[in-house]
Amino acid sequence: MNKITCHIITIGDEILYGHILDTNSKWLSQKIIDLGITVSKKTSIGDNNSDINYNIKKSISNYNLTIITGGLGPTNDDITKNCLNNIFDGDLVYDEKTFNHIKKIFKERNFDFTQKNKDQALVPNNCKVLLNQFGTAPGMAFEKNENILISLPGVPFEMKSLFENGCINLIKKKFTLPFIYHRMIKTVGIGESWLSDKISNWENNLDKDLSLAYLPSIGRVKLRLTGKGDDISKLKVKVKKEEKNLVSLINKYIYGYDNDELENVVGNFLTKTNKTISVAESCTGGNISSLITSVPGSSKYFTGGIVAYSNEIKINSLGIDQDTLNKYGAVSKEVAEQMAKNIRIRFNSSIGISSTGIAGPSGGTKEKPVGTIWIAFSDKEKTISKKLILTKRRDVNIVLTTINALNLLRKNLKID
Amino acid sequence: MNKITCHIITIGDEILYGHILDTNSKWLSQKIIDLGITVSKKTSIGDNNSDINYNIKKSISNYNLTIITGGLGPTNDDITKNCLNNIFDGDLVYDEKTFNHIKKIFKERNFDFTQKNKDQALVPNNCKVLLNQFGTAPGMAFEKNENILISLPGVPFEMKSLFENGCINLIKKKFTLPFIYHRMIKTVGIGESWLSDKISNWENNLDKDLSLAYLPSIGRVKLRLTGKGDDISKLKVKVKKEEKNLVSLINKYIYGYDNDELENVVGNFLTKTNKTISVAESCTGGNISSLITSVPGSSKYFTGGIVAYSNEIKINSLGIDQDTLNKYGAVSKEVAEQMAKNIRIRFNSSIGISSTGIAGPSGGTKEKPVGTIWIAFSDKEKTISKKLILTKRRDVNIVLTTINALNLLRKNLKID
Repeated sequence: MNKITCHIITIGDEILYGHILDTNSKWLSQKIIDLGITVSKKTSIGDNNSDINYNIKKSISNYNLTIITGGLGPTNDDITKNCLNNIFDGDLVYDEKTFNHIKKIFKERNFDFTQKNKDQALVPNNCKVLLNQFGTAPGMAFEKNENILISLPGVPFEMKSLFENGCINLIKKKFTLPFIYHRMIKTVGIGESWLSDKISNWENNLDKDLSLAYLPSIGRVKLRLTGKGDDISKLKVKVKKEEKNLVSLINKYIYGYDNDELENVVGNFLTKTNKTISVAESCTGGNISSLITSVPGSSKYFTGGIVAYSNEIKINSLGIDQDTLNKYGAVSKEVAEQMAKNIRIRFNSSIGISSTGIAGPSGGTKEKPVGTIWIAFSDKEKTISKKLILTKRRDVNIVLTTINALNLLRKNLKID
Repeated sequence: MNKITCHIITIGDEILYGHILDTNSKWLSQKIIDLGITVSKKTSIGDNNSDINYNIKKSISNYNLTIITGGLGPTNDDITKNCLNNIFDGDLVYDEKTFNHIKKIFKERNFDFTQKNKDQALVPNNCKVLLNQFGTAPGMAFEKNENILISLPGVPFEMKSLFENGCINLIKKKFTLPFIYHRMIKTVGIGESWLSDKISNWENNLDKDLSLAYLPSIGRVKLRLTGKGDDISKLKVKVKKEEKNLVSLINKYIYGYDNDELENVVGNFLTKTNKTISVAESCTGGNISSLITSVPGSSKYFTGGIVAYSNEIKINSLGIDQDTLNKYGAVSKEVAEQMAKNIRIRFNSSIGISSTGIAGPSGGTKEKPVGTIWIAFSDKEKTISKKLILTKRRDVNIVLTTINALNLLRKNLKID
C-alpha cells in the first residue's frame, strides 16, 4: 500500500496577521491522520490571486490530497473560486441545490436575497459540489490525475460538518487506505517523564504497527495508542491486548479513556453512587466549583460552594476555628481539613473538598513559599488532606490545584 | 520604502499530527507586523531532511526575512542544525558562550553533562549566535544577499525571549522599516456588527496610512487602530486624533485600552475607591469569582463568594426568601436582587453581584428557555438587575454571563 500524502492550505489574511489562531488545520490533521493519510505539510497564505494560484497548482501536482480552508467568504468569494475554476479549466455554473439552499436561508432570516448572494451558488462545472448545511458557501472537490483537492469554508463548524458529512466518504472512495485504530488512555497525578520511565520497557517492545504518543496538558498526560494495518479486527485485538498491558503498569493514574474528562468522570461516580458534593475554596477562587459545574447536569450532585478569600469569611461562613487559624495559619493541613469538613456539614452534602494556599505571585514566606497549597477531602467516614508544592505562576497553580483536588476526590470515591 | 516580506516556518511532527496548536506563529506574526514587515506565508513541515532543505532554500531566496521555529530539541537537534550548516556552507564549531551557559544549567540542576549536551553548543561558524537564556538550544541568524534567516527553538517562552531580546534589534538593523503605531480600544456589551454600524462613517474616512481591525471574543470586541508611516511623531498625533474621534462615538462600551482586561479594570476601580466585593452565583457556578481572583492581588478587594446551586443553599446560606422562590422561581429578577444584596450584607462587602439562570443544555421551559439569565448589582445605595437572553450553549452562556456581570459592576462603579 502506497503512502497517501496530504497538504493542508489555509487561506486568509487574518491568520497571517496573527489575528486568529489556526485551529482548523489542527482539527483537520487529526481527522486526516485517523484516515491513515500522512499530513506532509501545512501552508497559510493570504487572500491574493498569485499566492493562491501558485500554491494550489503546486499542491495538486505534489500531494495526493490537498485540503483548502477559507477564502470563500462573501468579501473574497470571487478570488478563491475563480482561481480554482481557472486552474481546473472549468466554467462557472449555478448549482441548483445550493441555490435553493441559500434562498431558503435568506427567506428564513428575512434578509434581502441579492445578486451577490445568488452568486454564492456559482460553482465550476467540473467539481463535485458539497452542500454546506450550515452556511452559504458550498464545498468543492476537484480531481486531477490520481490526486484530489477539496475546498472548504473557513468557519470552523461549517468546515467540520462538511468534512465529516461528505469529504470522509469521498476520500475513502478515492484512495486505498489502511485501517487506523486509536485508544486514548488518560492519566492524572504523574508527570510525563515519570510516566515514560514506568512504561519505557513496554513502549520499546511494541509491535511496529503500533505507536504511542504523549499528549501532556497541565496536571494530566494523555497517552494515544495507535494501531495501523490492513485487518481491522486483528488490529483491534492487538491494540486491546497492549492497552491491557499498559493499564496494568499505570492503573492508579488512569482516570479515563477516549472522550472522558476528569470532571465528567467524577460527576459520573457521584451520580452512580447517589452522592452529593460541596466545595470550600480559598486559593482556587471558585475554579474548582467552576470546573465541576461546567458539566451539563451537574446540578444533580453539586449542591454549592463557598469561596472564602478573607479570614473573616473563613471564620464566619465556614466556621473555621480562630485558634486554628492563629496557630497554623490559613495555609495549613488543619485549616484545609476544617474547610472540607465544615462545607460538607453546612451544605448538607455527602462529600466536601477544599483548597487553601499561596497562588502567587506575592504572599509567599520562607516557610510557605508561593506554590505551597493544601487540599482536603471529607466524607462522613474520614477527612484527609494533601500538601502540594507547585510553581511560581498564579494561573498554573490555580489549574494544578483544581486538577489535584478533583483527583483526590476521584481516588476517594468508591464504587461498590 | 520597499515592502519587506517574511515567511514563518514551523518545524515539528507534533504540529503536522495535530497534537499541538501552533501558537508560536500567531505570536510571531503579530510581532513581525508590528515591525512594519509583511507576513506573506506560513509553512509547517515535519522533522525530515528533504522537506527542511527544500523549504529553507526556497524561502531564503524568496523572502527578505525567514523565521524558523522548532526542530532544535535534543532528539532532532542534528537535522535542522546540519541542514542549515549545509545550506549556508559553514562548519560546525563550539560556541564558547553557549557551551558555558549549558554547562552552568546542568551544574545547577545537578544533571550529568554528556557529549550530546555539549554538542548543543555546536553552531555553524557563519551564523550569528543568539544566546538562549532559558534553554540549551541557541538561536542562529544567517545572512544571504539581502535576506536573513533566523532559527529559534520551538519552546514558546524560549522562542519569545530570544525574539524580543536579540532578533528585533537584528531585524531593525538589517532593514529600513516604516514606523508602526498601534492603539487597542476594548469594548464590551456591543456586538461586532452593531459596533461596525456605529463607526462605519468614521472608519470609511480614515486616512490611508491608518487602518482598523476588529478582534472579537465572547462578549467583547477589541478594535485595533494602526498607523504606518515614516514619521513616528506625526503618526502618533494622527492616531491619537482618530482615537479621540472613535472614542466619542462608542465611549460607553469602552472598558479599557491596550493591555487592559475587564477583570483588571474593575479590580483597579475597586482598589482606587477602597471598595470590596463579594459574589453570589448560581448558573455561572463559580466562574465569576474565578475570573475576579485570576488577578494577582485580588485578595485586597475580593472577600469571597457563595455558589448556591440548590434552592436549599440559596435559602440557608444566602437567606433567599422561600416565598420569593415559590412565587417567582429561582431564575427571576427578585431572586437575583436578593442574592446580590444578601451576599453583600453577609460577607460584609461594599458591593455584591449575582447570577441566576438556565445555562443549559436542559432545564429550560417555554416561559424561561435555556439562556434566560438574571444578573444583579447591589451596594448600600441601590440594588439593580438585568435580564439576559443568551444562547443554547452552556459553555458560552457561562462566559457571557460572567462578562455581563463584570460589565454591570464596571458601569456601576463610580470614580470621583
